[in-house]
Amino acid sequence: MEQDLSNKPHVVIIGAGFGGLSTAKILANKGVRVSVIDKHNHHLFQPLLYQVATAALTAAEIASPIRHILRKAKNIAVYMNKIVEVDTNKKIVRSRSGREFKYDYLVLATGARHSYFGKDEWEEVAPGLKSIEDAREIRKRVLTAFEKAEMEDDLEKRAALLNFVVVGAGPTGVELAGAIAELANYTLTEDFEHIKPSDARIILVDAGPRILPSFDEKLCAKAIDHLTTLGVDIHVNSMVKDITEDHVTFGEQTVATRTVIWAAGVQASSAGKWIGAETDRTGRVPVDAHLCVQDHPEIYAIGDTASHTPEGAERPLPGIAPVAKQMGEFVGKDILKRIDERKRSTFKYKDLGTMATIGRNRAIADLRGFKLSGFTGWILWCIAHVYFLVGFRNRLVVCLQWFFSYMTYHRGVRLIIGESGIVPDDKDAEDVKKEAKKDEKAA
Amino acid sequence: MEQDLSNKPHVVIIGAGFGGLSTAKILANKGVRVSVIDKHNHHLFQPLLYQVATAALTAAEIASPIRHILRKAKNIAVYMNKIVEVDTNKKIVRSRSGREFKYDYLVLATGARHSYFGKDEWEEVAPGLKSIEDAREIRKRVLTAFEKAEMEDDLEKRAALLNFVVVGAGPTGVELAGAIAELANYTLTEDFEHIKPSDARIILVDAGPRILPSFDEKLCAKAIDHLTTLGVDIHVNSMVKDITEDHVTFGEQTVATRTVIWAAGVQASSAGKWIGAETDRTGRVPVDAHLCVQDHPEIYAIGDTASHTPEGAERPLPGIAPVAKQMGEFVGKDILKRIDERKRSTFKYKDLGTMATIGRNRAIADLRGFKLSGFTGWILWCIAHVYFLVGFRNRLVVCLQWFFSYMTYHRGVRLIIGESGIVPDDKDAEDVKKEAKKDEKAA
Repeated sequence: MEQDLSNKPHVVIIGAGFGGLSTAKILANKGVRVSVIDKHNHHLFQPLLYQVATAALTAAEIASPIRHILRKAKNIAVYMNKIVEVDTNKKIVRSRSGREFKYDYLVLATGARHSYFGKDEWEEVAPGLKSIEDAREIRKRVLTAFEKAEMEDDLEKRAALLNFVVVGAGPTGVELAGAIAELANYTLTEDFEHIKPSDARIILVDAGPRILPSFDEKLCAKAIDHLTTLGVDIHVNSMVKDITEDHVTFGEQTVATRTVIWAAGVQASSAGKWIGAETDRTGRVPVDAHLCVQDHPEIYAIGDTASHTPEGAERPLPGIAPVAKQMGEFVGKDILKRIDERKRSTFKYKDLGTMATIGRNRAIADLRGFKLSGFTGWILWCIAHVYFLVGFRNRLVVCLQWFFSYMTYHRGVRLIIGESGIVPDDKDAEDVKKEAKKDEKAA
Repeated sequence: MEQDLSNKPHVVIIGAGFGGLSTAKILANKGVRVSVIDKHNHHLFQPLLYQVATAALTAAEIASPIRHILRKAKNIAVYMNKIVEVDTNKKIVRSRSGREFKYDYLVLATGARHSYFGKDEWEEVAPGLKSIEDAREIRKRVLTAFEKAEMEDDLEKRAALLNFVVVGAGPTGVELAGAIAELANYTLTEDFEHIKPSDARIILVDAGPRILPSFDEKLCAKAIDHLTTLGVDIHVNSMVKDITEDHVTFGEQTVATRTVIWAAGVQASSAGKWIGAETDRTGRVPVDAHLCVQDHPEIYAIGDTASHTPEGAERPLPGIAPVAKQMGEFVGKDILKRIDERKRSTFKYKDLGTMATIGRNRAIADLRGFKLSGFTGWILWCIAHVYFLVGFRNRLVVCLQWFFSYMTYHRGVRLIIGESGIVPDDKDAEDVKKEAKKDEKAA
């Protein structure tokens, strides 16, 4: 705060996910003024979000306040705010609170949301998994389904409550299905009197010909093995045709269910619209070899917001954390080079491999040709994820949580909070009583 | 599940707080059939709820699923459900889901909510602290106030955002005020560019002549000392006259503020109404020396739901955890005695003392005349609270959290989740843009 930064170039970073945060870290305490704007006050470690959705970790264990992460950077101000528009002529970002940010460099790192391919009405009945709110919603639905089944005497309705359908068999869908199967078959087994949680059917559906298309066939076969052992029903080549409150239709069959989770598609944020750029089918902004937007060398787009096809590659880089992180770091360095008038280089993605975990203690990993699966894969997965978690305290707590879960099958975060449909939040007992009487009369 | 319990007496326990859970534990695997009904799926360790409200602990660390706690009890079924009415003639409890519970013994352990002494319109602007939802709401408001202050250029508005008023100076109010002061003066100091979090004013207001009336004068003086060191302004003999969105009037003064927390009064749940009993001013059901309700020896009321004045005492026992716990255990034993036709005894409360913590590392404790304060008091407070926390895993994680907070001042749970007023949850960027334009035109 003491240092006079007012005549330094101003870098505005929108979004503090893996991409934006990496740029900010490179620019920390360098000769620029930086503003980081995010609609949340926290950075989220998205690869572990499915563990929050399945009651293994709490939100706080995978999220850290952005201003805390960046507190040592005296040239960076953090704003919890939402962007209203970008004036690319005047180089001004306008925010919800009315504050305007005049930029010399703008970094768009606003990520993606799930997409329902035009069937937006499915969102209500089949939530996706991108934010902490999403994860808590899914956790509430899954746990509430078991609670409702316990109270349901009608066997058909009870079976429907115990059907869980996950749409989309990429890493997120596979991880969710495995974690729900484990919850049903191990964690909850002792806790109910009227139902057997292991009677739950977990159904994983994908329109494509196989699960985990980004992994090679051999690892994919291992994953199918792991999932089947956990009791997950896999349906490939099964396009979802309909989702309602009480059933899902995919391929040629209809399954009665009350819990559907969407892990099938994503759509980039509105960043492309703000700057009036042409975007691809999923809303991503095309960028050049410096990750700059066409006609606007002062605007960068990175991570899930950007569509970048490396030279010689057939398709753009995937929307995963390592890509966002490497892009973010590249942009930070590129801005410093431009300011110092040093020679710029072009972005090269270094593929470190991909992994996915299946249930409690199995994972598959493809590290540039070096393939692992089963328990060894899982150990590697744990190490990698704990290593990349932000903040020392979180790492230790997460380790401890995993160790306990592993030893005991117990999950500490089985909390149903907020409106569950069982107990109306906003009504007191009197209202409930009146309503019940009304229901009685109506029946 | 194998055991045939159908001809055993049926005990229905409503509420799984300290009282109801204690009764259930006594009855576990005994010759009775037990149904525990709670509107939440979790038991909550309420004495630490203020730490969730001030970002020191997560909800999961002080809450455990009820069915998990009682999983070893083969004669106990747990229902997440809400009570609609009690038919004391037919001895039937009716629930929201339609399920009916025919009881031989009924235990009312439904606790209390905060009460606004007839000023219910204050609830919206001055939330109280009884549930996890409440704690998260308060956490969101406190953290959001700092975020908004950081973006506010108008100095008067900024000052108002940094005023925090806690109404009610019992243990909860004192603990909240101390924890917020610590948040402002230690935890957040490095994290903002435009505001100094330590400029925050934390104001503790009470209508009575002194804070912590249940403690003796000497310990109370220590507490005032501790609070003043942390920078809390204490106003006693100051009845609150008005609370609105932007100010509070108490005694002769009005303070501009955006964050008011209510810790001033409680009202028992509707259990008294369900059974048609006469209740006292705060809704509590009077009980006899066996904690039974008048004219209904098969119905017990315990904890915050009951008003029990021990022989020779001037006033009823206070609504605190140890009272609820001891009452719950007594009732469990009393039911077993009645079934076995053994000699019954009367309830005697064993006062183990009271404590309150003030900020990071100070507390006062009065253990039957043995008085402690400062750091020694705090160590004792930690041991006592960790000891009583349900479940081994939670204990360990809470210890670890406290140890980290103590060493670093850092708080891990500074998450703003859900509607904050800064970023509307239910609108996308386009809506926000439209609205901003509308605002502009209107201005």
